[in-house]
Amino acid sequence: MLHRNYSNFYKNFTSESVIDLFCQIASLPLGYNSETLIKAASSPEMIQMLVNRPALGVQPHSTWAKTLEDSFMSVAPKGLSQVFTAMCGSCSNETAYKRHKRGLQAAISDEDLSSCMKNAAPGSPDLAIMSFNGGFHGRLFGSLSTTHTKALHKVDIPAFSNWVSSPFPSLKYPLDQHEAENAKEEARCLAAAEEKMKHAKTPIAALIVEPIQSEGGDNHASPKFFQGLRDLTKKYDILMIVDEVQTGVGATGHFWAHEAWNLTTPPDIVTFSKKFQAAGWFHRPDVRPDAPYRNFNTWMGDPIRALQAKTILQEIRSKELIKNCRDTGDYLKTELTQLEKKYPGTISSVRGRGTFMAFDLPSPQDRDTFVAKLRAHGVNTGGCGPQSVRLRPMLVFQKKHADIFLDAVEKVVRGQ
Amino acid sequence: MLHRNYSNFYKNFTSESVIDLFCQIASLPLGYNSETLIKAASSPEMIQMLVNRPALGVQPHSTWAKTLEDSFMSVAPKGLSQVFTAMCGSCSNETAYKRHKRGLQAAISDEDLSSCMKNAAPGSPDLAIMSFNGGFHGRLFGSLSTTHTKALHKVDIPAFSNWVSSPFPSLKYPLDQHEAENAKEEARCLAAAEEKMKHAKTPIAALIVEPIQSEGGDNHASPKFFQGLRDLTKKYDILMIVDEVQTGVGATGHFWAHEAWNLTTPPDIVTFSKKFQAAGWFHRPDVRPDAPYRNFNTWMGDPIRALQAKTILQEIRSKELIKNCRDTGDYLKTELTQLEKKYPGTISSVRGRGTFMAFDLPSPQDRDTFVAKLRAHGVNTGGCGPQSVRLRPMLVFQKKHADIFLDAVEKVVRGQ
Repeated sequence: MLHRNYSNFYKNFTSESVIDLFCQIASLPLGYNSETLIKAASSPEMIQMLVNRPALGVQPHSTWAKTLEDSFMSVAPKGLSQVFTAMCGSCSNETAYKRHKRGLQAAISDEDLSSCMKNAAPGSPDLAIMSFNGGFHGRLFGSLSTTHTKALHKVDIPAFSNWVSSPFPSLKYPLDQHEAENAKEEARCLAAAEEKMKHAKTPIAALIVEPIQSEGGDNHASPKFFQGLRDLTKKYDILMIVDEVQTGVGATGHFWAHEAWNLTTPPDIVTFSKKFQAAGWFHRPDVRPDAPYRNFNTWMGDPIRALQAKTILQEIRSKELIKNCRDTGDYLKTELTQLEKKYPGTISSVRGRGTFMAFDLPSPQDRDTFVAKLRAHGVNTGGCGPQSVRLRPMLVFQKKHADIFLDAVEKVVRGQ
Repeated sequence: MLHRNYSNFYKNFTSESVIDLFCQIASLPLGYNSETLIKAASSPEMIQMLVNRPALGVQPHSTWAKTLEDSFMSVAPKGLSQVFTAMCGSCSNETAYKRHKRGLQAAISDEDLSSCMKNAAPGSPDLAIMSFNGGFHGRLFGSLSTTHTKALHKVDIPAFSNWVSSPFPSLKYPLDQHEAENAKEEARCLAAAEEKMKHAKTPIAALIVEPIQSEGGDNHASPKFFQGLRDLTKKYDILMIVDEVQTGVGATGHFWAHEAWNLTTPPDIVTFSKKFQAAGWFHRPDVRPDAPYRNFNTWMGDPIRALQAKTILQEIRSKELIKNCRDTGDYLKTELTQLEKKYPGTISSVRGRGTFMAFDLPSPQDRDTFVAKLRAHGVNTGGCGPQSVRLRPMLVFQKKHADIFLDAVEKVVRGQ
């Protein structure tokens, strides 16, 4: 249905034909045909920025500073008072990787300047970005070197071979029934990360981590784990980058998923894209480059997407959509957990925060069949990891929509 | 003026306040406030694509194939029947780098699949992208490894250290007065390139080259040089990527600058961005990945920019803008050459194709002063290379606009 009569897809997401819980790979904040976004799309401001696209790094329009304040800066994570705008999630992560500690601490020598022109050390230094097994941070050469989900994304592409990765906790669900063993697993992963930091042949400049590993299989970890990571990055003088490309902008029940960690020191950098339509990263003031053009490109983001982000934020606030995600998420989790108990051997490990949820099927093939059958029932979801189904509905997804989805799930687990 | 009263910048590019010959770093095709683009910006199609942004790789809207045909494919370079869409010039080049020969020829082994997950060979192979000294291909980790213009762009950023670069011809102008020595210089550079290809420790998977090195200083080479390069890439089984991010879309007097070369075999890949507003690359059918998701990301470009590209093409055709660039360019070159003769020791090496022009000043500081003085006279231009001024006017730039610019240049060279 989704593919045969695709035009319906856009008309009404609660139509009989399709209900979408994957939302263009987790990137639609307000669903299809949002009236507020349609109104903003025809505003004179939007048309001017669409037609007269500026090179924001050198000739921003006079309204740009105000647009930044009204959009990204109004939801800047605690402690991060600066923003760098980009075009997509991969670019956000890669430009963030360019702001590593060494660039901030050491004076630039003539040898640095001449050697970097030959792609040689010390100007092109032997520095690594550390990441986690199962992490996904994009598909360009730098970001792909930190991505560890599917081999098919990586094979044949040259990578930074010295960019280490470390195990991410593999928790058991439900979390409240496996506290002791999950704590042990997180301690094991923290120890492994510290080993990498301590003994890496190549100095580690920055660490990147997702609050919930999404493409990797919706793998969670506790606030305590992330606080432990933050402590390690402080101890070993490593920048901490939190990749909120998929988790950011409300679906987890917090605007930024890392707010749930209550860190004693904020991360150094938080990257975003997807549901904000716009992309970029927030950072601490001391991460700012010390000279112009050190982190630069022609467009430096897109003002029309920043204008959309501003509209999305207005809608999130006026309709209390973060609360909606928490409420709908609680309902979804309760109901899915009941289905898990009612139909053992079908879905399992129901997990998530807000509506940012997932569950497992017994095998990869069962998962693929499950997703295909759901689609035949008019429900679009996505796979992640080896055998998980992930739910990434729009922020306006409510109990009444959840009921349509739950009804389809029950039909599928009953073999219909 | 440009910075003090910036709102004027967008109102009228022939106003008394500012005339723009740099155009948001060579990225504005039709100038400010194009009526045709304004009309397209409010079309229902544009608003639908702006509000319901699709993940083009998995759920394109039903109109997407037609949009591709009406936009990019209607100007596909000869021999290149496929297009891959992206978000910006750097991303276009990097995703093109991912399609190197090895991926097309060798079967994928289990060892490839397991080793690439650890960023290790053979799955993450030791393969290089070859480029030229003075070349500029972007600022992400892969593209920056092939960029060789300014040290400040590269210093402190880890690079692919085995990605070789080779000398690009340094020609003398006017070209018709230095034929013999320029031919010798080009032969020297071809020989150097062949040495690199023959003796590189790391296999070279692809070569990337700009038709005119822009950021590097508007460095030209003859069609014969590029034919020689094409022959070498065929001989050593290396993909040839032509980076038309800055040269593409008409300003040189051809739609694609490489059309002027009359190659016996088309390049394998041609990348684009900037004046097309949209970005991506054309390629031969055999460069297409052999499996889905091998070259992929969430948005895979942006349909609203493709819709703009379609409108830009309509305008280029109906207003014969490529002919306009040739005519205005001929006029500009004649007049600038006369100023060069009339005021020796000021501007020199006037060069270019169409309105894609440049000239030199005696020193880097003279160039900076010249650009600043032109700006004080209401004319915005850009620097490139150590001591060049580059002109990148919109495609609608005509003789009457050129006269305003030429008048300001004469005032500045006369010390006013």
